[in-house]
Amino acid sequence: MNAYYEELKTYIEKSAALGTALSMLHWDNETLAPEEAIKNTSGVLGILSGEYYHTAVNDKVMELLEKLSQPKEQETLDWKEKAIVKNMAKDIEKIKVIPAEEYMEFEALTSEAAAIWAKAKQNDDYASYMPTLDRIIEIQKKFAGYRAKEGQKLYDILLDDYEEGFTTKELDEFFGRIREAVVPLLAKVREKGEVDKSYNERFFASDKQAEFGKFLAEYVGFDFKRGVLAESEHPFTMEFHNHDVRITTHYYENNLESSIFSIIHEAGHALYEMGVSDELTLTPVGSGTSMGMHESQSRFYENMLGRSKAFWTPIWDKLKDTFPESLCDVSLDQFIAGINKAEPGFIRTESDELTYSLHIMVRYEIERMIFNNEIETKDLPKVWNEKYQEYLGMTPPNDRLGILQDLHWSGGSFGYFPSYALGNAVAAQLYHYMNQKMPIEKLLLESDLSSIREFLKENIHKWGKTKTTNEMLMEITGEPLNAEYYITYLTEKYGK
Amino acid sequence: MNAYYEELKTYIEKSAALGTALSMLHWDNETLAPEEAIKNTSGVLGILSGEYYHTAVNDKVMELLEKLSQPKEQETLDWKEKAIVKNMAKDIEKIKVIPAEEYMEFEALTSEAAAIWAKAKQNDDYASYMPTLDRIIEIQKKFAGYRAKEGQKLYDILLDDYEEGFTTKELDEFFGRIREAVVPLLAKVREKGEVDKSYNERFFASDKQAEFGKFLAEYVGFDFKRGVLAESEHPFTMEFHNHDVRITTHYYENNLESSIFSIIHEAGHALYEMGVSDELTLTPVGSGTSMGMHESQSRFYENMLGRSKAFWTPIWDKLKDTFPESLCDVSLDQFIAGINKAEPGFIRTESDELTYSLHIMVRYEIERMIFNNEIETKDLPKVWNEKYQEYLGMTPPNDRLGILQDLHWSGGSFGYFPSYALGNAVAAQLYHYMNQKMPIEKLLLESDLSSIREFLKENIHKWGKTKTTNEMLMEITGEPLNAEYYITYLTEKYGK
Repeated sequence: MNAYYEELKTYIEKSAALGTALSMLHWDNETLAPEEAIKNTSGVLGILSGEYYHTAVNDKVMELLEKLSQPKEQETLDWKEKAIVKNMAKDIEKIKVIPAEEYMEFEALTSEAAAIWAKAKQNDDYASYMPTLDRIIEIQKKFAGYRAKEGQKLYDILLDDYEEGFTTKELDEFFGRIREAVVPLLAKVREKGEVDKSYNERFFASDKQAEFGKFLAEYVGFDFKRGVLAESEHPFTMEFHNHDVRITTHYYENNLESSIFSIIHEAGHALYEMGVSDELTLTPVGSGTSMGMHESQSRFYENMLGRSKAFWTPIWDKLKDTFPESLCDVSLDQFIAGINKAEPGFIRTESDELTYSLHIMVRYEIERMIFNNEIETKDLPKVWNEKYQEYLGMTPPNDRLGILQDLHWSGGSFGYFPSYALGNAVAAQLYHYMNQKMPIEKLLLESDLSSIREFLKENIHKWGKTKTTNEMLMEITGEPLNAEYYITYLTEKYGK
Repeated sequence: MNAYYEELKTYIEKSAALGTALSMLHWDNETLAPEEAIKNTSGVLGILSGEYYHTAVNDKVMELLEKLSQPKEQETLDWKEKAIVKNMAKDIEKIKVIPAEEYMEFEALTSEAAAIWAKAKQNDDYASYMPTLDRIIEIQKKFAGYRAKEGQKLYDILLDDYEEGFTTKELDEFFGRIREAVVPLLAKVREKGEVDKSYNERFFASDKQAEFGKFLAEYVGFDFKRGVLAESEHPFTMEFHNHDVRITTHYYENNLESSIFSIIHEAGHALYEMGVSDELTLTPVGSGTSMGMHESQSRFYENMLGRSKAFWTPIWDKLKDTFPESLCDVSLDQFIAGINKAEPGFIRTESDELTYSLHIMVRYEIERMIFNNEIETKDLPKVWNEKYQEYLGMTPPNDRLGILQDLHWSGGSFGYFPSYALGNAVAAQLYHYMNQKMPIEKLLLESDLSSIREFLKENIHKWGKTKTTNEMLMEITGEPLNAEYYITYLTEKYGK
């Protein structure tokens, strides 16, 4: 092994260890930690984040990376080592301009913010969360400012963190196409009249939902020897390494779809992480390549597969048997119509495929305003509600159903939301291509998801971060991301 | 603040942060982690243990401690700082002789061993666990050897780690008294004929046990804002800090007592940790003073309070209502007779008060043999079974009910078991004294546990490690540990 690389490896391993510890404390904080724990534990998180920072960002690591980037040294590295060096060099470029103390302060702040947000959401009390959010925004602006090149927009810097090469220019166009296509389509769908899905609001006991949820996760391929399904306020996926990937859901006893589709969605994310090659475990390239590609996998499972009749045909009896009373008078066709009903709602995570991108558009536009200094934090709920009225035709009756619904901003994740919409577009492009290569509908009817899973694993998952989204799309579909597949998919599905 | 102390404080805080991370990973490993996680996660634990070691044990810390131990500097320290310096100096004395790589290897080994032990127990397969146990013993002997002074017995070194000032000399005497008193008492009790407690093996649904267990923990004062109750193979308590203290239990659907008394027991431990003063949080003296004192608190709640009729009188209906079918024909008096039945059994954690110390005596004698090099690891099950025959009159039919029942040795905890017996003795001494100061029975009948809890908090819990067991016993009862209270307690209770 290259001697410089060997030296770098000790830093990589220590970073991975501290990163795993931080993830574990965050996981615990979201799923289990008692109410009073966070005040002390956030101090612990602050200190460990500082250690993590100093392990990843220091003169020695920078020197090693510079040496290892030279052609002479590159020749002695294998493909994985090359990818790791490239990835680390890129990351350190971003982070080295941020002073360590500020980085630590930010980590401590966001870990406390999760609980503040959760409480504010519970109590529908934006005011109690506002100062924290304001401080997070202030720091994120400052951090982006450190990184900005001459004339570069702050928001473009954040967008690039989640999906390389996508700026407000590309996204304005992208959302422009969505608006052109989706708004008239939605109007047409609404004219056609109501689909009755009142069954979804009947009583579905949490423990029964948990039982079916576990079955469902396994059905799509989630491996419980390498994963955990737990409960949290907001569903998420967290990977420690490719042999320990965890998903969460939230059981609402008067909303069956909520847990079902969040579980399929998070399982899609988890399959990505579980599919990463063992050669890359606990290295800087040992997880999914980008947020957009990640979201494409979760959406592929949730929507392309999970909302199809072919998917539900073999397991419909199982669902009915789990809830014999609440589903007694519901047919498979009614259920399929119900889970595909397009109807504007307040909650992004429970929205249908057609309106989903409109929810994202609201967030995209607000984030753009924030980082262009066009809005104050105290005015966010007002603007949020106005945009919901404009795009979805309805005003949230309270902030719980409005601006307080998402966890992301409390973690400082600005620029993240657009990758959800990009993920939908990637998923549609993949589906279009895969459907030409294998009989997806037939496979689903036979309860055989293995070829689908294997294709995604071989072409996407196993590569971790060693290839970019567009590189993989080129290899698989012969073209980079093209939003038209998504527009066509929506138009064909909802135009019927 | 003293400038040396201020410098030491950064090491203290970093140690606490790494210690919390390690505890969290261990907690997760015991309660939730998926099967395949441990292989990678144990590497992470190894690296973090190394960091932890280097943070606590290094030339700078030793130099600071030496300076801070000088009279001149001591004058400038407050009582907490003095206690912290004393405690750290003592700990570093123990650990500095162990090479860092060996310490790390041991940490990684014991974290893997937990899963190997659990599997071996499940499959009743000592052979699969033997090589791991043998390696743990080998390392513990080596470590004790590093620490031994001329002519000092290896086992005495380990015993002192758990309860200062107690060696094989004191313990041989202690167990001698137990044997003299308990063996004839047990024979007498067995002659009196059978207590029928077959009700305990009826069906008690896990979720109902969990519901009652949560009530019970709260009833004795466990604060769920500062704690968690979870499930694991073997019940335990783990504290992250005094605002996050967690207990586990295991629900057996054909054994009601198992979860009930493990929950009261672990809650007793947890109350100790929750009661530590906020002034000591996340410092080296911010947890219970010794294993023996800790066990006195858990036994006090489990036995002195939790097995009394006065304790159960106010909550008996609640228990019956939780299990209306399985307890329909059981009276409170039958239940009290059942939970106090003295009968030799195989499992320590489910044994009665009378035989408990005999279980400990078996382990004490075996550990003494191990560290005197009088036995090989492969012969442990045989000797275990022989000793059970000798003291309890019965031979375990398999290793699952024999040597594989306890977690402790897989974690390298040799010398720990005797502190359980010492804890019983401390509890009896405390009870004797407290009962003269407050009407314990009356308080229990009134469901008022607050004065009992408050007394223990004020006199023991809040002090953390700033006082030793014997110091506190002197202050509270006017004498150091005296085994005769325990002998008298058992004789009075079971002599009736």
